[in-house]
Amino acid sequence: MVRKIDHVAIVVRDADAALKLYSEMFGFEVVETLEGPGGEFKAVLVRVGDITLEFLQPLTDESSYARFLKERGGGLHHVSFETGDIEQEIKTLKAQGRRLINEEPISLPSARIAFIHPGAAENVLIELVQRG
Amino acid sequence: MVRKIDHVAIVVRDADAALKLYSEMFGFEVVETLEGPGGEFKAVLVRVGDITLEFLQPLTDESSYARFLKERGGGLHHVSFETGDIEQEIKTLKAQGRRLINEEPISLPSARIAFIHPGAAENVLIELVQRG
Repeated sequence: MVRKIDHVAIVVRDADAALKLYSEMFGFEVVETLEGPGGEFKAVLVRVGDITLEFLQPLTDESSYARFLKERGGGLHHVSFETGDIEQEIKTLKAQGRRLINEEPISLPSARIAFIHPGAAENVLIELVQRG
Repeated sequence: MVRKIDHVAIVVRDADAALKLYSEMFGFEVVETLEGPGGEFKAVLVRVGDITLEFLQPLTDESSYARFLKERGGGLHHVSFETGDIEQEIKTLKAQGRRLINEEPISLPSARIAFIHPGAAENVLIELVQRG
């Protein structure tokens, strides 16, 4: 089952500026910075207390993040739920006929992730993540 | 300082339908249901594990939630950070010249809350909440 919010993701024009702002307002500090596949985006994970946010900065005009930034001016993009068994979550959702963006988990260096389509979840983009 | 995500709020057309859907997908259960001032909206707090979501259903055509539903089809609306001292958070933000929606906390039966303007926070509507 899902059990905690891994992070809340925010699309921004400039991740460094967002970090500076959230650092001044709340004390957020960088946990990890990484670049998306093909140099499409930069992701900066920041944390204060138990709160983790992910600033997503598009680096090209082509990504879905770039479209989100252009159409909405950025802001809340998705919420990520941590699960102990991503295979089982996906299996359950598929058995229910839910629309998924990834029907198989995507393997990252330190996690496996899959996105549920917003059309299946009240217009919310949900990421499932299994850490480790 | 802010220390945890109190909840993530989602604007929906029908809170009962949203509850049914999220319950089937993830096992969310109702924690609290309340009606907003003037009957403008219904709020249903739901939880699974450490995750709390708030489904916000507009009950009139006039509220900001109704506009959000009409313009965007619903979805992620705001994120709420829990703080142990909301007065101090507001004082810090005001000293920094940040734009707030509420310059004084709003007292609810079991919490005090204040919203930071999205224009001050990378287009994210942030609620501060002090419980108890």
